[in-house]
Amino acid sequence: MSRLNERQIILLFHRALGTKGFVSEDVETVRIGKKMAVLKTDTLTYKTDVPPGMKMEDVARKSIVSCVSDFAAKGVRPSHCIISVSLPRSFSRKKIGALASGFSAASSEFGLSIIGGDTNESAELVISVMMFGTADKITRRRGAKAGDCIVATGPFGRTAAGLGIILGKKNATPKFARIAKNAVYHAVPRLGFGISASRYLTSSMDSSDGLSTTLVEMASQSGKKFTITKMPMDPQLQDFSSANRLRLEDLVLNGGEEYEIVATVPRKLLPKVRQIARKNKTPLIEIGLVENGRGVFLLDGAAIRDRGWSHFA
Amino acid sequence: MSRLNERQIILLFHRALGTKGFVSEDVETVRIGKKMAVLKTDTLTYKTDVPPGMKMEDVARKSIVSCVSDFAAKGVRPSHCIISVSLPRSFSRKKIGALASGFSAASSEFGLSIIGGDTNESAELVISVMMFGTADKITRRRGAKAGDCIVATGPFGRTAAGLGIILGKKNATPKFARIAKNAVYHAVPRLGFGISASRYLTSSMDSSDGLSTTLVEMASQSGKKFTITKMPMDPQLQDFSSANRLRLEDLVLNGGEEYEIVATVPRKLLPKVRQIARKNKTPLIEIGLVENGRGVFLLDGAAIRDRGWSHFA
Repeated sequence: MSRLNERQIILLFHRALGTKGFVSEDVETVRIGKKMAVLKTDTLTYKTDVPPGMKMEDVARKSIVSCVSDFAAKGVRPSHCIISVSLPRSFSRKKIGALASGFSAASSEFGLSIIGGDTNESAELVISVMMFGTADKITRRRGAKAGDCIVATGPFGRTAAGLGIILGKKNATPKFARIAKNAVYHAVPRLGFGISASRYLTSSMDSSDGLSTTLVEMASQSGKKFTITKMPMDPQLQDFSSANRLRLEDLVLNGGEEYEIVATVPRKLLPKVRQIARKNKTPLIEIGLVENGRGVFLLDGAAIRDRGWSHFA
Repeated sequence: MSRLNERQIILLFHRALGTKGFVSEDVETVRIGKKMAVLKTDTLTYKTDVPPGMKMEDVARKSIVSCVSDFAAKGVRPSHCIISVSLPRSFSRKKIGALASGFSAASSEFGLSIIGGDTNESAELVISVMMFGTADKITRRRGAKAGDCIVATGPFGRTAAGLGIILGKKNATPKFARIAKNAVYHAVPRLGFGISASRYLTSSMDSSDGLSTTLVEMASQSGKKFTITKMPMDPQLQDFSSANRLRLEDLVLNGGEEYEIVATVPRKLLPKVRQIARKNKTPLIEIGLVENGRGVFLLDGAAIRDRGWSHFA
């Protein structure tokens, strides 16, 4: 009786459903007349997705953030959501109240209407968020053109570092510890930037499965070669990685849970996209360029493989 | 530290979200131009929703049936769904394959496209189904008029009986045992009937929370009195209830998990609705009438209260 990994499970579902040629996207879309309904569902499970010390308000917020970030990367404003909450019988009134406050605050933060939901009993806390919006078009994972710049809306590696610090396994300066832990507890999806910049991007993807996963997926779907000229990292990450004997590249490329947008932009539109980033107080880092070819490489020719966040699980 | 029941939990969420005046429906709707997007999410959790002996194919099917039944009651054909599956680490390839086959077969059975999904790890099997369709209008829970007939698309009580039989706590004739167990393992939502009959109904609701809950909710939302003149029961249920010393009314009214449609129809349209039922091979039982007033009553004046399915939990 063999155990399957996530990739094998997904493949098995695709085979059974006859969707083997399926091109994966951050959101699903359905045509309605001239409009497009944009849908996404994402599930948070307590043991996998909630780090120690996270407040219930932030747990609720995180379940919404992961869908919002997918919409942001597609340039779509989410308008409505439905939340399905499964709770252990032992959950106290206080914890449930904190969850409810978290949903309420997140709906205000992102301008969402929560239009329904249901509650169930389960062995551990499980929150499924179904998000909805409409659009004329979305920015896809594929579409990068040779000559485009590759950009990212923030530094990577903080979340992996933060999780290590929270678990008490890693050491950091108080200042970096605060930044890194905050990245874990209170990620900020780039909704304003994503919506305004979308029309100038040739391709775009939410990076929450990890930078390496994101780059490999975008290069593969576009049928192009991505060369990474600059690692988008927090300036303090190098000290942290040395002090804790961690590979810096692993932290940046394979940590995951950064809700940043990775996108490709025609070089002549880069100033415009920079301006939108500034307006939305969103960092924008040029990290590489698109060329004809295949795969994702560093400047020295070393290949970047899809090693997602599971390396730190 | 007090523990809350489901009603209190829902109230707490409504209060926190400022949706206290919220009118609950079987589905949620969002206007898109001249069309209406119809959305529903429902979550199956293993311990609560899966009876012993249920095949994994039927577990997958059940998670879809509960959303399909809500669409059926609103007169809307669901077109697409997204499925979020959370699995325990120990789940075998065989079980996952059976789940996938079940989703595939259910998507064919109900004419649905499964357009996406995600997989997660969790302590127990949790399946969240997000269903989508479009409509010009839906038939609401409110809208019953004095003089309307109340109808139901099938007998009630089989599921509660079947669960008792499956758990080995109740005795039944082999024939009734087969029927009752089948009602538990393979419920048939009334999609064809619901879609065709919808335009002739003044109000309609999926009955899966139990007949009493459904009637009380519909009467309350319509601001009318519902008088029940005939209990919609399986002919063999009386023998079963006597043999097992169960209250017949409890089985019929408060069992739950029947995916039937309860609806109100202007008397002059009843023949038309009966014809649609025949064409869709769907039983149709006239169970009562709508009058001015409030509440739900039996002919003898006894009040029917909302006692949902939890009585048999």
